[in-house]
Amino acid sequence: MASTNTQTPRQHKAAVYDNPGVVSTKIEMLDTPKPGLGQVLVNLTHSGVCHSDFGIMTNSWRALPFSTQPGQVGGHEGVGVVAELGPGCEDLDVKVGDRVGIKWVAGVCGTCLPCLSGSDGLCLKGKISGYYTPGTFQQYALAPADYVTRIPDNLSSIDAAPLLCAGVTVHASLKRSRARAGDFVVISGAGGGLGDLATQLGSRAMGFRIIGIDHGSKEKLVKENGAEAFVDLTKFPSNDNGAALAEHIKSLTNGHGAHAAVICTSANAAYAQAIPMLRFNGVLVCVGIPEGDLVPITTASPAPIIFKQIAIEGSAVGNRRDAIEVLDFAARGVLKAHIRLEKMDKLTSVFEEMHRGELKGRVVLDLS
Amino acid sequence: MASTNTQTPRQHKAAVYDNPGVVSTKIEMLDTPKPGLGQVLVNLTHSGVCHSDFGIMTNSWRALPFSTQPGQVGGHEGVGVVAELGPGCEDLDVKVGDRVGIKWVAGVCGTCLPCLSGSDGLCLKGKISGYYTPGTFQQYALAPADYVTRIPDNLSSIDAAPLLCAGVTVHASLKRSRARAGDFVVISGAGGGLGDLATQLGSRAMGFRIIGIDHGSKEKLVKENGAEAFVDLTKFPSNDNGAALAEHIKSLTNGHGAHAAVICTSANAAYAQAIPMLRFNGVLVCVGIPEGDLVPITTASPAPIIFKQIAIEGSAVGNRRDAIEVLDFAARGVLKAHIRLEKMDKLTSVFEEMHRGELKGRVVLDLS
Amino acid sequence: MASTNTQTPRQHKAAVYDNPGVVSTKIEMLDTPKPGLGQVLVNLTHSGVCHSDFGIMTNSWRALPFSTQPGQVGGHEGVGVVAELGPGCEDLDVKVGDRVGIKWVAGVCGTCLPCLSGSDGLCLKGKISGYYTPGTFQQYALAPADYVTRIPDNLSSIDAAPLLCAGVTVHASLKRSRARAGDFVVISGAGGGLGDLATQLGSRAMGFRIIGIDHGSKEKLVKENGAEAFVDLTKFPSNDNGAALAEHIKSLTNGHGAHAAVICTSANAAYAQAIPMLRFNGVLVCVGIPEGDLVPITTASPAPIIFKQIAIEGSAVGNRRDAIEVLDFAARGVLKAHIRLEKMDKLTSVFEEMHRGELKGRVVLDLS
Amino acid sequence: MASTNTQTPRQHKAAVYDNPGVVSTKIEMLDTPKPGLGQVLVNLTHSGVCHSDFGIMTNSWRALPFSTQPGQVGGHEGVGVVAELGPGCEDLDVKVGDRVGIKWVAGVCGTCLPCLSGSDGLCLKGKISGYYTPGTFQQYALAPADYVTRIPDNLSSIDAAPLLCAGVTVHASLKRSRARAGDFVVISGAGGGLGDLATQLGSRAMGFRIIGIDHGSKEKLVKENGAEAFVDLTKFPSNDNGAALAEHIKSLTNGHGAHAAVICTSANAAYAQAIPMLRFNGVLVCVGIPEGDLVPITTASPAPIIFKQIAIEGSAVGNRRDAIEVLDFAARGVLKAHIRLEKMDKLTSVFEEMHRGELKGRVVLDLS
Repeated sequence: MASTNTQTPRQHKAAVYDNPGVVSTKIEMLDTPKPGLGQVLVNLTHSGVCHSDFGIMTNSWRALPFSTQPGQVGGHEGVGVVAELGPGCEDLDVKVGDRVGIKWVAGVCGTCLPCLSGSDGLCLKGKISGYYTPGTFQQYALAPADYVTRIPDNLSSIDAAPLLCAGVTVHASLKRSRARAGDFVVISGAGGGLGDLATQLGSRAMGFRIIGIDHGSKEKLVKENGAEAFVDLTKFPSNDNGAALAEHIKSLTNGHGAHAAVICTSANAAYAQAIPMLRFNGVLVCVGIPEGDLVPITTASPAPIIFKQIAIEGSAVGNRRDAIEVLDFAARGVLKAHIRLEKMDKLTSVFEEMHRGELKGRVVLDLS
Repeated sequence: MASTNTQTPRQHKAAVYDNPGVVSTKIEMLDTPKPGLGQVLVNLTHSGVCHSDFGIMTNSWRALPFSTQPGQVGGHEGVGVVAELGPGCEDLDVKVGDRVGIKWVAGVCGTCLPCLSGSDGLCLKGKISGYYTPGTFQQYALAPADYVTRIPDNLSSIDAAPLLCAGVTVHASLKRSRARAGDFVVISGAGGGLGDLATQLGSRAMGFRIIGIDHGSKEKLVKENGAEAFVDLTKFPSNDNGAALAEHIKSLTNGHGAHAAVICTSANAAYAQAIPMLRFNGVLVCVGIPEGDLVPITTASPAPIIFKQIAIEGSAVGNRRDAIEVLDFAARGVLKAHIRLEKMDKLTSVFEEMHRGELKGRVVLDLS
Repeated sequence: MASTNTQTPRQHKAAVYDNPGVVSTKIEMLDTPKPGLGQVLVNLTHSGVCHSDFGIMTNSWRALPFSTQPGQVGGHEGVGVVAELGPGCEDLDVKVGDRVGIKWVAGVCGTCLPCLSGSDGLCLKGKISGYYTPGTFQQYALAPADYVTRIPDNLSSIDAAPLLCAGVTVHASLKRSRARAGDFVVISGAGGGLGDLATQLGSRAMGFRIIGIDHGSKEKLVKENGAEAFVDLTKFPSNDNGAALAEHIKSLTNGHGAHAAVICTSANAAYAQAIPMLRFNGVLVCVGIPEGDLVPITTASPAPIIFKQIAIEGSAVGNRRDAIEVLDFAARGVLKAHIRLEKMDKLTSVFEEMHRGELKGRVVLDLS
Repeated sequence: MASTNTQTPRQHKAAVYDNPGVVSTKIEMLDTPKPGLGQVLVNLTHSGVCHSDFGIMTNSWRALPFSTQPGQVGGHEGVGVVAELGPGCEDLDVKVGDRVGIKWVAGVCGTCLPCLSGSDGLCLKGKISGYYTPGTFQQYALAPADYVTRIPDNLSSIDAAPLLCAGVTVHASLKRSRARAGDFVVISGAGGGLGDLATQLGSRAMGFRIIGIDHGSKEKLVKENGAEAFVDLTKFPSNDNGAALAEHIKSLTNGHGAHAAVICTSANAAYAQAIPMLRFNGVLVCVGIPEGDLVPITTASPAPIIFKQIAIEGSAVGNRRDAIEVLDFAARGVLKAHIRLEKMDKLTSVFEEMHRGELKGRVVLDLS
């Protein structure tokens, strides 16, 4: 039978989007739900704040299927402790008291074609946390018992939080780069929230020779993260389709260009510049999702793609195994997000900083 | 020592591009060369005429590095008999009298990174037949002894010729589609020279469920080639970024969309329409090279590529092993180009037909 | 809420192993169970009889973890109609009245490492139907709603039954062979229950050039199934570690040997003979499981494996997606088991025939 | 035309196998040859001494096609400077004065199926240096200009020598392990010549979690090389088919067993012990070649291979690209063989040490 926890309060604090479309959140008290069939109730202690939350709150991603509604609780990088088990969880490995994470995709059906293909991040019935379901900017949230991810013992909840989306995403994207140890991999936006983790994981765990691209102010961070070279984006023209930048990258890669470029920013210009910097059989991995109108990758014309046999790979959030793996890397000290801890009620100001492009590293909310 | 052949004439007939930039060829008598170190002299009997020859003759591919010069002999799908061996060929398997083919890439260095990566079609020193070197629209041509491809005994020279470029190209592209037996593969331009072969090879050899797209007049051909379904392109709007066509393809593929789309035409519109018709993890393979200004694939924006985890793969001409394999399939009766045999002096009129878009199937020149 | 079916009887007929260790089954009336959380009750109409059932009944597989107990209902290739849904199945796509199949692995946890790696056939908590759970030699059986496989409309239940184990198994094994269209694939035991399907699937769907090996009496069947060549095993010595047989296979494969050999028999000799017949980079796929004491593959010594870069691949039963795919191939007419339909009470005599090695093709029980 | 070098002496010093079958070498003066078509003459300064040389000298490998003849010059890890170019090398990138290496496979045909498949180490006409051709235990040796490997500037000739066989071999074998960053990889024989390099490369470049197995005396070396854990082989029984050792490995790998085991020793027992220590889908990579009679891998029976879906992969020497890559890793400081430099005339005593199993690390001969 389902286990219960007498300490679960009847209500809990949550930060809701009170006016979706603009930057605004409000702390409210919400009724704490009971876990249904196959669900766990998680007493969340921390949640990362991701740029995707911003996109959902402000309805700025054209690709999303519906508008965010007032009262939506956002957040999808939540860490906490299992407080209650719903019925039907007895045979699973999760128990009350386990420390677990809730991810971007909150749960999946397990039986559709993407699920059966190892692409559960693309589940046809997948629910995005903080958009389809009440998210992790609150003290209690429900989650499917078979889809939460156990947090390794020697990884703090603060450090774990941003890995549940950003970490999973960059891990999956590096896998899709087809790069192998010793290969040159450009990380575009190497100093941002995704690029920070991609640089560490690629250089320290996978043996890639990382070339980080970002604004000059990020050079120290990027090099400390293990990048072999740093390229200051601002020193290259933005109107030559990446030609000058490509020449520079070639000079850093024995004249051939990079094996792969992983675009961790959401700038359309970064996509356009990436194809020319690749070598034959090079791979452009798309990770950062531009906001606003859909703009094609301007250098993605058939002729150059064919002549150099370029591949362009879209990489969505990653699957359950990617999540386990990236937490394992972190528990072993391979990567660690640059984190600023904030109280829950600072969420609006955090989003405002993000909007102004002033946010450095990742913010994790203390939900206590 | 090098073998010689007393029957080799001092001069031979060749069709040269006398006025590159426009459609024009002229039959001339050229001195027959002696094979150098590691070369063979091939007495060509047949040569396919490919759309790429048109591009080279008319200087219409912007991606090519230099302009074609007057006097250039075009052609890169040549079949003939080895007439003489130059010095240094003793240890190779090729002998005088062997029937061999000369391909789009006439020869490679064998030591550059692409060559060492199984991508000899991208050799950094690769020479394109009929552009860098005197091509196959002539009765005698030189070729590297280690790069000609043996023609199987039970395959006629006429049937072999178009496979040396078109066949190799589609074989390589189907491999890059990541499709497996039972998968739905769209062939765009299924009734054209490349699509004709791709449809046969995909459906008869690889077990793909081919959906051919082309003008309605090609339906009979495409279905005879093994396509499971045919889609008449003209029945769909051209200004909706492929939305209506995508819906139709989904109705043919259990609602999911195709596993892969291989673009065998050179129409930019075909590229734009392909991405929406793909399922999650779907692959767009770029084969046909549009002429004129470079146009991005208009639906290739990061967001949809990421959300569906689409991959775009450029596929160049294929390598030596692809050539051996596709000739082997043809020798076993799996595929056969639809060929019209023409005399050498009809080359200009063949190119004119091609220019007017009236050419059906592939033309092979009888070089005798 | 769970749906019920008033027509479900309180008891149903089942064939039980009344004396595990020997060949013996007995028809008994068993109480029909109610579906639990996430389960469906399937009204079975047909069940294939597989050699693995024999191994379980007679306790002849040393690798199995526990002895079969008296009263066990065997069977793992069951087809029937969903009669009742347990609670928690509402969001799944399965409904009362759907025709579904129960497979070798009856259900999986969905969360262990093998499950998360696309190897749900190796689930750490996987339950083998007819060994861990009451199997399909009965009129009603429970199964997890998320693990039954839908039977395509245009595939009869009789034809579907043997595909649920044998079909899935050979499909998975052909994938693991790394062979591609045009490659030479040896099927050892091509005339047996697995080899029959492997030959059809490999030659008709995947474009492999199948060389079938079996006793001479199977030649007609094997060739009708699409094999390019048949080799009569009895014409070769059994005491030369496969040397003479390997020479013959080389003569059929342009002198190089086969790209892959898939061992569909359970004869240790077939394994020993396979390695010498492979070419460089060749792959031996292990499918048939020998009974009795474990015998190493006698030609599997490091030196020849290294010098020819041979790979040996174990291939277990396949996963859910393999099952969907093989049923889809069958629904399209690509493969069809050679089936003999028998009444439920003939099960013992069927096993006796199997024991004597006299069984041809697959037997399907009519459970009505 | 071919370049010549007036400083090339007419004779040079060589260590020849004067009595193949036993451990014996003799220094002789040999005529220095002229490079033929497509050849270079290399003025060798250093050569590694590999266990394979021992096998060739003593005719102890049963798998080799012919007996070594008296007067054979052994050696296949040679580094030196190009002294002369033969005719036909003009278009290649190699020049007089370049520092290059001669490898186990001295040269390949470039046109056979293995060569066209990226497996040039398995070339059907490949010549093993120091067995088919005069090897590198001498001051001058001929080599094909297109098959020597350039030594990176910041890698000493001494350090480069053992990488040309041992380094290439382990690099290729780690690739064939299918392991990815974060996976557990057992290196059996981690303290030997191959294992030394495999441990460094796997842990430092590829992010593998290496578990080194060897005699207890090697623990310090193996851990310094980056292994996460060391297992003293002598503490486990040798007569239980690896059962106790497997339990220990499981305790080090979260209970699942290793993802891969790479056997760098030539002990048949190491092979037998490896299969039980692997997890589901685990990979056994065969690298070390046992001497004497061929012994099957005793735990390689079909049933356990199938039930756990184990793969066994033979890994031969590696190809040209592997050589370039491993030298590049070394030039970047990722791996460095533990080397003892010896004079050329100590070769016999080095082989005697090797024979007694007393040799630690790799020996490089100073050929000056």
